[in-house]
Amino acid sequence: ADQLFLISGPCVIEEESIMMRTAEKLKEVSERLSIPLIYKSSFQKDNRSSVDYYMGPGLEEGLELLAKVKKEFGFPVLSDVHYPEQIGPASEVLDVIQIPAYLVMQTTLVVEAAKTGKVINLKHGQFLAPENMVKPADKAKASGNDNIILTERGYTFGYNDLVVDPRSFHHMNQTGYPVVFDITHSIRKYGIPSADPNGGAREFLPTLSRAGVAAGVDGVFIETHPDPAKALCDAASQLCVNDLEEFLKPLIEIHNLEVSYRNR
Amino acid sequence: ADQLFLISGPCVIEEESIMMRTAEKLKEVSERLSIPLIYKSSFQKDNRSSVDYYMGPGLEEGLELLAKVKKEFGFPVLSDVHYPEQIGPASEVLDVIQIPAYLVMQTTLVVEAAKTGKVINLKHGQFLAPENMVKPADKAKASGNDNIILTERGYTFGYNDLVVDPRSFHHMNQTGYPVVFDITHSIRKYGIPSADPNGGAREFLPTLSRAGVAAGVDGVFIETHPDPAKALCDAASQLCVNDLEEFLKPLIEIHNLEVSYRNR
Amino acid sequence: ADQLFLISGPCVIEEESIMMRTAEKLKEVSERLSIPLIYKSSFQKDNRSSVDYYMGPGLEEGLELLAKVKKEFGFPVLSDVHYPEQIGPASEVLDVIQIPAYLVMQTTLVVEAAKTGKVINLKHGQFLAPENMVKPADKAKASGNDNIILTERGYTFGYNDLVVDPRSFHHMNQTGYPVVFDITHSIRKYGIPSADPNGGAREFLPTLSRAGVAAGVDGVFIETHPDPAKALCDAASQLCVNDLEEFLKPLIEIHNLEVSYRNR
Amino acid sequence: ADQLFLISGPCVIEEESIMMRTAEKLKEVSERLSIPLIYKSSFQKDNRSSVDYYMGPGLEEGLELLAKVKKEFGFPVLSDVHYPEQIGPASEVLDVIQIPAYLVMQTTLVVEAAKTGKVINLKHGQFLAPENMVKPADKAKASGNDNIILTERGYTFGYNDLVVDPRSFHHMNQTGYPVVFDITHSIRKYGIPSADPNGGAREFLPTLSRAGVAAGVDGVFIETHPDPAKALCDAASQLCVNDLEEFLKPLIEIHNLEVSYRNR
Repeated sequence: ADQLFLISGPCVIEEESIMMRTAEKLKEVSERLSIPLIYKSSFQKDNRSSVDYYMGPGLEEGLELLAKVKKEFGFPVLSDVHYPEQIGPASEVLDVIQIPAYLVMQTTLVVEAAKTGKVINLKHGQFLAPENMVKPADKAKASGNDNIILTERGYTFGYNDLVVDPRSFHHMNQTGYPVVFDITHSIRKYGIPSADPNGGAREFLPTLSRAGVAAGVDGVFIETHPDPAKALCDAASQLCVNDLEEFLKPLIEIHNLEVSYRNR
Repeated sequence: ADQLFLISGPCVIEEESIMMRTAEKLKEVSERLSIPLIYKSSFQKDNRSSVDYYMGPGLEEGLELLAKVKKEFGFPVLSDVHYPEQIGPASEVLDVIQIPAYLVMQTTLVVEAAKTGKVINLKHGQFLAPENMVKPADKAKASGNDNIILTERGYTFGYNDLVVDPRSFHHMNQTGYPVVFDITHSIRKYGIPSADPNGGAREFLPTLSRAGVAAGVDGVFIETHPDPAKALCDAASQLCVNDLEEFLKPLIEIHNLEVSYRNR
Repeated sequence: ADQLFLISGPCVIEEESIMMRTAEKLKEVSERLSIPLIYKSSFQKDNRSSVDYYMGPGLEEGLELLAKVKKEFGFPVLSDVHYPEQIGPASEVLDVIQIPAYLVMQTTLVVEAAKTGKVINLKHGQFLAPENMVKPADKAKASGNDNIILTERGYTFGYNDLVVDPRSFHHMNQTGYPVVFDITHSIRKYGIPSADPNGGAREFLPTLSRAGVAAGVDGVFIETHPDPAKALCDAASQLCVNDLEEFLKPLIEIHNLEVSYRNR
Repeated sequence: ADQLFLISGPCVIEEESIMMRTAEKLKEVSERLSIPLIYKSSFQKDNRSSVDYYMGPGLEEGLELLAKVKKEFGFPVLSDVHYPEQIGPASEVLDVIQIPAYLVMQTTLVVEAAKTGKVINLKHGQFLAPENMVKPADKAKASGNDNIILTERGYTFGYNDLVVDPRSFHHMNQTGYPVVFDITHSIRKYGIPSADPNGGAREFLPTLSRAGVAAGVDGVFIETHPDPAKALCDAASQLCVNDLEEFLKPLIEIHNLEVSYRNR
């Protein structure tokens, strides 16, 4: 429980070779660093800012690819869901069902996901005071499922900007559920397409990631891709999977240090 | 086109007598003030902060009640939808399909709603820079439907607070679509149950409503109820339908004045 | 008391001919519109973002020029002060002593200004919740002077942006002091030099000014210059004095309308 | 340069025995932890929210007490200044002259302080985008003094709240000047008197302090008092000096870890 875990993979499911190359590299890194991994990739991004942008392969094909990764590498797999009717089929493959930040207040979505008994990862709504994250968690729990993860990913700060407020980790830790820091979405610049090199502010990655982990988390969420510049979503914010190991090292050390002080 | 229109009715569909009494009073007011009315009430509120709160009668029963209001009073009717599968049945009754603020970035929801050919009311996402409201509008338009309304209802301002930025009306007016100001949701206090008398800040109603209308709108959105304190949702922010006429008078005058200067 | 008043003039005191040409034009406009005028220009801007920018002629020369305007045109005159030792000499010429927004919490500055018995214009601190504007007002009042004006000019909203929250006017009106809306500073874009054409967002002027006046004010504050593009400060936000009359007309009408509803 | 330093002491100068007891305890802690200390206490707090609150002993008496502490314990000493005329006398005793956050844009104040050649501690304005902190630093530097420290203390976030944005440390570190995190002011709750137990949110101290230090700082600023509940200013946010050692331990470890990764 005191060991940092990692949620990682390409933002959206792309062609099989990309998925496999990422998984392979993640396998290596997770073994070398002894860090448990959940493989994340979305079968359908339903909130892209234009209908012209790639949304993913969709439910059926996407789940097939995730099942393949799961089988070949043994990772638990995670995708988000956007609509209740996706939950049944998704739960046959996914180990973790993620509720997107924008949708975290949607009762039916959270309740239906919770009823599957799978782990539910609730992204922190960009508009929701962190102490109120207990509310969607309570909706899941009322459905008999308290396998809940809460994931911070930044809060609305003026227009087209997100701030990661360290106090958010305090509030979410108070709930008793595992808390994850989604580092790569925290550097997205709203209002700029995610394919635009200005759509992410990678210069903040070291500062933000270290601050967030020191604030007290159980896991980190880092979208990775073999060649981010060519990624079909969040090209400006994903981390190159080849850089992941070096990126994680200080975070693991900070986490271990933070844990050693946590219960004093 | 220069005449202010009104979207009004109880937040959520309650028992028939409440719906009818509100409609009757709205009929009177709209006729006396010669203000076109769209009757609004939601068949299902899917984002209440607890599963224990009343969510409405659901799709079937809710639509039946709206159909009754429509038949008896001749109003066009509006409800929001939260999931794509609601859109087919809803479009058989509704004249205006509303996309909730939290959900305005959900592509499938907006596209499916637009495909019905009905008027689409896009609530301004609490987390979306106002100039970006053109993005969900473009999604609707790309589906061949440009009967679009944009509705301001406040933007995330620190925690548990919404600000109505007058600049938002400027940005939304630039799109060329009719712009509506949702006055009653702008005074909701997040993090406090809507049944709590502190869950809304009614003292701001005159100031906010006049400022918003002077900023340039085509319509106003005001949730009304015969007895707000007993309303099953947003008890602290709805307006008593008996107070509506007096409340609207200055807004109509300010609107007429604003319109007279609009095209100079 | 129900008549809108105007605070206007160049942001900073420039050469005599500029000051006089502006005053002449203001005289014309104020007479034609029967709007009482306070002539505003600062003898020293102490918070410019670089020591290389023009700060004004300084206390002595600046006050001389204001005295000249006052004598020739009969206007009451206003400047801000930044340091207590300026207050003595300034009070010999000024009719209104303005406390800059950043400095509104400085006790000694407010108290010394108040002790002169002059009218004190407290700018709303960009970082101060509007209901807390009563605190600097109380400091002035405790010094025996309740000739106080409160002026809204926008509140910090994320980075490098100000929002004019209509609720602010409600709070400031609750104090009972006259409330002014500083329209031109509300469109300043922080982080961009005020000489840069992008340093102000003039496209928001009609929307913001009408919204603010409808929210309930007693006066408006509009910096004017005969040739804003060449102004030595706030070139991107000042209004051309030749455009002032047309700009004011809708504001006066909205104000009169708002006042007619104020006490009902 | 890689060793964390500490700025600490009572918020405002109180009676001699308080000052000495705090200094004694700070001496012990700084020696035991080998952490360099700058003793901080203000001779005059000029921005208290009421004239009825204690402002400190004033310039003369305050400087005498700081000189005593300096002589007896050998600490460099720091106070803020609010007006240019205080700078001459203050610079005869102070080793570090601090510019309060609200006043950081005041050119004359910064320039006069810089001209003394003393170290200048520029508090980050609550309304100033962190990348713009280079502007007041440039004003000091233009006066021939680049002994500059930049101190983060939270940024305006909605009303009556401050957020510590980890990105701020990145921006301030880019300037090349030493960066300090003022932890105790970051938990002040605006709009609530600092003597009210609700005027500070101490529950955030561990989270915020660890996050800030991991983000990359050179020093920490922690107001301390032998009996905070009885402190004459910031009673709700100061740390009990007896708790300082335990509070600092994880921060020093996190700092050392962060430094070890800083230059890779």
